[in-house]
Amino acid sequence: MKQVKIGILGAGTVGSSLIKIIEKEKQRILQNHGLEIVIQKVGDRSYQKKEFLKNYNSTSNLEEVVDDSEIDIIVELLGGIEPAFSLLNQSLNNQKSIVTANKALLANKGKEIFEKVKELQKKNPKITIGFEASVGGALPIIKNLRRVWSFGQIQSLIGILNGTCNFIISRFEEGMEYEKALKIAQEKGFAEADPSFDISGKDAGQKLAIISSLAFGCWLEETQIQIEGIEKIHKIDFEIANKNNMKIRLLAISKKIQQKLLLRVHPTLIPRNHLLSDVRDEFNALLVEEEYSGITMIVGKGAGGFPTASAVLSDIVSIASGSSNLWFYDFSSYSLIEDGEYKFYLRFQTVDRTGVLAFISKILAENQISIASMHQEEGEEPVNVIIFTHTCKESSIYKAISQIDQNREIILSPTTIIRVF
Amino acid sequence: MKQVKIGILGAGTVGSSLIKIIEKEKQRILQNHGLEIVIQKVGDRSYQKKEFLKNYNSTSNLEEVVDDSEIDIIVELLGGIEPAFSLLNQSLNNQKSIVTANKALLANKGKEIFEKVKELQKKNPKITIGFEASVGGALPIIKNLRRVWSFGQIQSLIGILNGTCNFIISRFEEGMEYEKALKIAQEKGFAEADPSFDISGKDAGQKLAIISSLAFGCWLEETQIQIEGIEKIHKIDFEIANKNNMKIRLLAISKKIQQKLLLRVHPTLIPRNHLLSDVRDEFNALLVEEEYSGITMIVGKGAGGFPTASAVLSDIVSIASGSSNLWFYDFSSYSLIEDGEYKFYLRFQTVDRTGVLAFISKILAENQISIASMHQEEGEEPVNVIIFTHTCKESSIYKAISQIDQNREIILSPTTIIRVF
Repeated sequence: MKQVKIGILGAGTVGSSLIKIIEKEKQRILQNHGLEIVIQKVGDRSYQKKEFLKNYNSTSNLEEVVDDSEIDIIVELLGGIEPAFSLLNQSLNNQKSIVTANKALLANKGKEIFEKVKELQKKNPKITIGFEASVGGALPIIKNLRRVWSFGQIQSLIGILNGTCNFIISRFEEGMEYEKALKIAQEKGFAEADPSFDISGKDAGQKLAIISSLAFGCWLEETQIQIEGIEKIHKIDFEIANKNNMKIRLLAISKKIQQKLLLRVHPTLIPRNHLLSDVRDEFNALLVEEEYSGITMIVGKGAGGFPTASAVLSDIVSIASGSSNLWFYDFSSYSLIEDGEYKFYLRFQTVDRTGVLAFISKILAENQISIASMHQEEGEEPVNVIIFTHTCKESSIYKAISQIDQNREIILSPTTIIRVF
Repeated sequence: MKQVKIGILGAGTVGSSLIKIIEKEKQRILQNHGLEIVIQKVGDRSYQKKEFLKNYNSTSNLEEVVDDSEIDIIVELLGGIEPAFSLLNQSLNNQKSIVTANKALLANKGKEIFEKVKELQKKNPKITIGFEASVGGALPIIKNLRRVWSFGQIQSLIGILNGTCNFIISRFEEGMEYEKALKIAQEKGFAEADPSFDISGKDAGQKLAIISSLAFGCWLEETQIQIEGIEKIHKIDFEIANKNNMKIRLLAISKKIQQKLLLRVHPTLIPRNHLLSDVRDEFNALLVEEEYSGITMIVGKGAGGFPTASAVLSDIVSIASGSSNLWFYDFSSYSLIEDGEYKFYLRFQTVDRTGVLAFISKILAENQISIASMHQEEGEEPVNVIIFTHTCKESSIYKAISQIDQNREIILSPTTIIRVF
C-alpha cells in the first residue's frame, strides 16, 4: 500500500465531487490501486462558506497549499489562467507533481508548463503533470493518446468537444428554437450565463489545441485554430440536413495532410450513418485515426462534476502509482493549412424574384465554385436557396459569399455556410 | 532511457505485426515512452519458413524462450489453451511478467493465472500480466477498466465484441444473404473457415467473461454466460427491424441488478438512434456505465494484425515503464440471474390459414405473455407473423415457443426470437 498526499486548489463543482469520491471510495481505491489518498489541504477563497470543507484543513490562502511541504501532488481546479499559472509554477518549483483540469491554461500557457516539467524531470523523474480532465471530462482521451495511440502516426482527430453546442444541436434536431434550447442548457447547468465561449466554438478550439499538440508532437495554441461556431445555423438547416439524410455537428478537426496540419472547428454536415451522428445531447466524442490501431472512437460525458472529478482522480492514481509515463512534444513544427478544400452547403436567404439564382450562380462561377445541386425551399420571403457545391477552396467560398451578401436587394440575411464531410 | 527484453511466443499475424511495429517505431517508442524494446528471442514452430525471422534469435523450442534468463517479459501469441497455459506458468515461475492476447486461455484458466500472479507479487511486485489484446483488439478496454472506470460501481457493460458477426449483420442490412456475407467475411480474413465459434456467440462470450470479471471484481467463466448466436436471424428480420426504425446487433451484456449479475450474449433489437446502431462492419464497441463517469463508449477495430499488435505493445510499454497497476478480483461472488425479463420480438413462420393467430396468441396468453403488437407480413407461405411482446420472463417465452413450434401443421420453421432493448 502506498500513501499519497494531495492539496486541492478550488473546491467548486469538480473539487467537491473529487472530495466526495475520494471519501466514499477509500476502500475501492485501496483495493483496485493499492493506494491511500490523503487530502492534506484544500485551498478555496470562500472555504468558510462551504460546509463540506469543515472536516478538512482548509485555507483561503492558496499559496499556503502549494508551499505545504507534506503535499506530493497539487490538484488545480480553479480554472482561468491566473492565479492558476503562478500557483502551478510554484508547485513545480516546490518539486511537486501537478494535476490540472484547466484547458484555458494549457491552451495558452501549455508550452511553458510542459517545458518546465521536462526540465525538472532531468533531476527528479518523479515530477510530472496530469491533465486528463482538461479535455472531454470523463472521456479518457489524454491517457489513451499517451499510452495507446502513441506507437504510430496519428492521421486525424475528429471531435465533438463542446457539450453545450451538442445539446443545443440536439434540441434543434427536435425542432426547438435556439433561445429555448439555450435556456434549457443553462437550467441543466451545461451552459454558462454568457454562452458565447461555448457557442463561438472557442471552448472546443482550446481542447483541440491540447489534444492536437499531444497527437502531433508539437505545441499548438488556440490562436492557430480557425474557428467557427454555431451562431449562424438555424432550425431550418437541420430540417434540410434531415431531408438529405444527414446530421449537423460542431466538429473540432485536426488532420495531417502531406506534412501540414489542418486545424478547424466548424459546423459540419455528416452522413446519417456516420459514427458521430448518434452522439447527442451533452455527450462528447473523439474519433482518432492512427496508423496501427486504425479508427477508434470514444464517446462519453464531456463535463459535469463527477465525470470530471473521476478523470482528475485517474491522474492522481496514475502519478501516485508512478505510472504516468510522460509525453513530451519533440518541438517538431508543422506549417498549417490556411486554405482548406471542402464541399460546402450554402443557404441563401433571398427575395422571391426572377434572376436570383442567375445572380448567385454567376458569382459562384466567377470564383471557380462548381455547383453540385441547387434547390429552392418553398415558403414566403426570405426564400431559402440551398446549394451544395463540389470541392472548392475555403477562400473562394468566403470571397464569393461576401460578394453575394453585399447585394442587399437580393440577399436578405447573411448566408449560412456549412462544410460537408 | 530504459531497456526491456522480450521473448515472443508465436510469430503469426499478430506476432509478425508486433515485430514490424517495434522495428519501424524504435525512435517513436524511445521518444514517447523513454523505452528501448529488444526482441531477445522468438519461438515459433515453423520459424525456419518465415523469412522475416532470419534476423532474430529464433527457435522452434518454445520452452527455450520462457527459460531464457535475459528476458523480462514473455509475450504469448499462440492462442488456445495448451501449450500456452503451461508456457505462461513456467514464465511466471521464472519471475517474468507476461503479456497475452489469448482470450480462450483467460476465459478458461484466468483464475489460476491471476491467482498465481497475485501470489508472486507478494515477493516481487514487478511481476504482472498484460492482457489488453485479449478483448477487442485495438480498443483500449482493459486499460480503461483498470485505470479509468475503476473508482465507482460499474452498472453495466454492453458490447459488440465479435467482428465477424457484426460484419455479417451489416451485409444482412444491405439485403445480402447469409452464405454470401460469410464468404466475403472469410475472403477478407475476418471469419474462420469454420465460422461456428464466432456465429454461435461463443467468441463474444469468452470476451464478455474476461471484461465482466474485471468490471465486477469476481472471476467469471465462459460457461456462466447464456449465449445465443446469430444463426436464427435472417434477412427478413432486418427488413422488419428497419420498418420499425430499429437495428439488430449481437450484444454481449453484463449488468448488475440488485446484487445479481445478468450475463448474456444474444441478438438484440435496438433503436435506430442508439449509440451502438452505427457500429458497422468489423468494428467492435463497448458501452460502459459507471457510477461517476456515466456512460462511456469505445468503438474500434476489434481484430487484425496491427490493431491487436498495437494493444500488445501498449501492454509491453506499460509493464516496462512500471505502470501496469494491477487489478485483482476480490473473490466477491455474485449469483447470476437465470431468468431475465425482456421485451421480445417473435417471428413465426406459419401456414396461410385462419386460426393461426388465435392458436399463437392462446399459447402466449397461457404463458402469461402479453402481446404489444401483432403484424402479418404479406407474401407467400410460410407467412411471417411478427409479434412484439410486453416485458416477460425468458423462461415463459422459451416454454411458449417450444409449445407453439411443436405444431408442425401450423408452424413451418423454428420461430425466431430476438430481445428488444
